[in-house]
Amino acid sequence: MGRAIIAGAGALPGLLLAAGPAHVVRLEGVASAPLDAPDIPARFEHLGRLFADLRAGDLRDLVFAGALSRPALDPGQLDAETAALMPRLVQAMGQGDDALLREIAAIFEAQGFRILGALDLRPDLAADAGPICGAPDAAQEADAARARAVLDALGPLDVGQAAVAAKGQMIGIETLQGTDTMLRFVGATRPGSGGVLVKRPKPGQDLRMDTPAIGPDTVMKAAEAGLSGIEIAAGTVLILDRAATEAACDASGMALWAAP
Amino acid sequence: MGRAIIAGAGALPGLLLAAGPAHVVRLEGVASAPLDAPDIPARFEHLGRLFADLRAGDLRDLVFAGALSRPALDPGQLDAETAALMPRLVQAMGQGDDALLREIAAIFEAQGFRILGALDLRPDLAADAGPICGAPDAAQEADAARARAVLDALGPLDVGQAAVAAKGQMIGIETLQGTDTMLRFVGATRPGSGGVLVKRPKPGQDLRMDTPAIGPDTVMKAAEAGLSGIEIAAGTVLILDRAATEAACDASGMALWAAP
Repeated sequence: MGRAIIAGAGALPGLLLAAGPAHVVRLEGVASAPLDAPDIPARFEHLGRLFADLRAGDLRDLVFAGALSRPALDPGQLDAETAALMPRLVQAMGQGDDALLREIAAIFEAQGFRILGALDLRPDLAADAGPICGAPDAAQEADAARARAVLDALGPLDVGQAAVAAKGQMIGIETLQGTDTMLRFVGATRPGSGGVLVKRPKPGQDLRMDTPAIGPDTVMKAAEAGLSGIEIAAGTVLILDRAATEAACDASGMALWAAP
Repeated sequence: MGRAIIAGAGALPGLLLAAGPAHVVRLEGVASAPLDAPDIPARFEHLGRLFADLRAGDLRDLVFAGALSRPALDPGQLDAETAALMPRLVQAMGQGDDALLREIAAIFEAQGFRILGALDLRPDLAADAGPICGAPDAAQEADAARARAVLDALGPLDVGQAAVAAKGQMIGIETLQGTDTMLRFVGATRPGSGGVLVKRPKPGQDLRMDTPAIGPDTVMKAAEAGLSGIEIAAGTVLILDRAATEAACDASGMALWAAP
């Protein structure tokens, strides 16, 4: 019985392949890096075909690597299985990312597949609580606590995996557009400088389907937004390239730490 | 016993002057429109002087017209009264807009002044519950309910007087930068089009010091952000120029309504 990685963009599919052999499902329209593993080409519209291909290869363990973007579906291309699933998917799409991902997981599970999370394969990619680069000062701790309180309040509404506070004020709250877009907004519109990005999963988020992640790119974008610190949740946020992330923190003077 | 309007930018000082004679306090560095009323020049750093000027004119009723921006203070210019108040002001500044405005109100009240709100003078500027331009359809009602739920969750944290939902997804949550900046972000980063801006005071917000307001400019910015509807809170959000606001809604096909 084998494993398949549903590959999104970025470094995560390669990092998961390092945990053991797997096929790589490449969805049309999703840019994913070349990897030394057998490919399974697929389309969102042809889920019936994907189920059959995975069964033919005896690939029962699935890992979604990188959050699925919301694809533009071509209704004329839907196979019968996908068409039958559309009412469930469309309804879930109106209820937030978590609802959609939970529905996708349920659909694959109902087909007999097992969903693994990135952290099941690579628990070493998460951080223990404590400093990673430098350590937060009192003002950074206070900003992190303010951003955490906002994320805690929004979590039950399936909104917000990240937020930015500076000098006690909220200057960015993640919406559908994602963390990078929020950081560009913060950099372009904020008064002053300093402040802390907090990134953590929403309470109740299905970490198998969407594991929050940071990497050197996040550190550079936070620095460009004028921030001085990043707090991630211990044990549940992936650091995609720890050496390069720490080097980016050193280069930009960014403090990075994990909190329970 | 007379009245003074602490003038911010925009149309509100003029609208409040229409409610009865008043002096107009013009703070250095705050752009305010010329009005047919006696001016009192003032500086944030010279609160002692402002208290004395107001008392000399027997002006005991104060109206803050337009939210105070967070000014850059020149510490070398502080008079003795202002210097003595700085610890309270600095502490409040770290706790959100509401905390700062409550502190400013308390400072003026402790000096014997009475703070009136824009709605005390011009209750006619708020809207009764119901349609103002067009009426929301079911999808717009659902988006408004989603944005309201987010604002309700954030209100106790003194964050968010406005939020935008489209197709059930949050695509904008107001932070320190304000509603207009959020609308620009939404327009520049959102997928698709449609969606609803909800604007309402935070629970517990001191409406005397900061009354949420919309106007024709808000409608145009919402239209530029691709939105199809605006919901304001009945009775507590000012419509600054109702005729021009309705004309802007008609011109852009924007629905506008007030909800309890």
